[in-house]
Amino acid sequence: MRTDLTGDWYFEDFTPGQEIELGSRTVSEEEIIDFARQFDPQPFHVDREAASGSIYGGVIASGWHTCAMMMRMVVDGMPFASTSMGSPGLDGVRWLLPVRAGDTLSLRHVTKQVKASNSKPDRGVVWTSWVATNQHGETVCTIEGMAMFKRRPAG
Amino acid sequence: MRTDLTGDWYFEDFTPGQEIELGSRTVSEEEIIDFARQFDPQPFHVDREAASGSIYGGVIASGWHTCAMMMRMVVDGMPFASTSMGSPGLDGVRWLLPVRAGDTLSLRHVTKQVKASNSKPDRGVVWTSWVATNQHGETVCTIEGMAMFKRRPAG
Repeated sequence: MRTDLTGDWYFEDFTPGQEIELGSRTVSEEEIIDFARQFDPQPFHVDREAASGSIYGGVIASGWHTCAMMMRMVVDGMPFASTSMGSPGLDGVRWLLPVRAGDTLSLRHVTKQVKASNSKPDRGVVWTSWVATNQHGETVCTIEGMAMFKRRPAG
Repeated sequence: MRTDLTGDWYFEDFTPGQEIELGSRTVSEEEIIDFARQFDPQPFHVDREAASGSIYGGVIASGWHTCAMMMRMVVDGMPFASTSMGSPGLDGVRWLLPVRAGDTLSLRHVTKQVKASNSKPDRGVVWTSWVATNQHGETVCTIEGMAMFKRRPAG
């Protein structure tokens, strides 16, 4: 089962059960507020005072920001720049715990299932779980997703 | 069934079958590339030339960017700033068609199901579909999600 991250990963390199640990990333309050001002300006994401009085007790990252950071960790960590063909969608996201300024997220990339395309012989679909944990080892977010990858050229 | 968007929406204002049309938003190439450089720097999101040679034939928005824009349209359109309590997660996202520079997205907010919390009498969970269509009337993205809202105070 392949685990090295040194060369292009094609569809054939993904195997159910495969787990890859992908770096970590710390998020600042500025980043949390910048993202939320653009895309999710709810009080508990952008307003320190209002957030203090909310059920979260302080500013928390937009769940979309957490997902976007997870995406970046996957793009930076998994060597599929030339083989990725995008994604048809996700089968579930769970925002389990708040992500706050100063938190450091680590990502585990788990391959769940693979299926070569019947209609398009150049590609296959890979089902994955992405699991983000914080610096306390708590799982903060999980994403069950799909992505298409090129098949390894013959020869 | 409530459809006005003029005052706070509490949990009790959401009714299964309710459909609300929420404005529209045009996305520029600069926005697409800016988002992707930060969070999803795959060639078909950030590199015009590489994108031209990809299966997409040009730069397309990161699916996360599309979702984030949809979130912003909901926050801007639905009057729940003081009643929203965040979201435990999503049950599905489908990226059905590429979103490209110059596309104008419109959003339909559909209430699917509602459930008052048994354990926390101050809130309830609302299950929604968000449906984004482009200027050609084509559905580009759907999100099946959950969100928590405050219950309307008695009195």
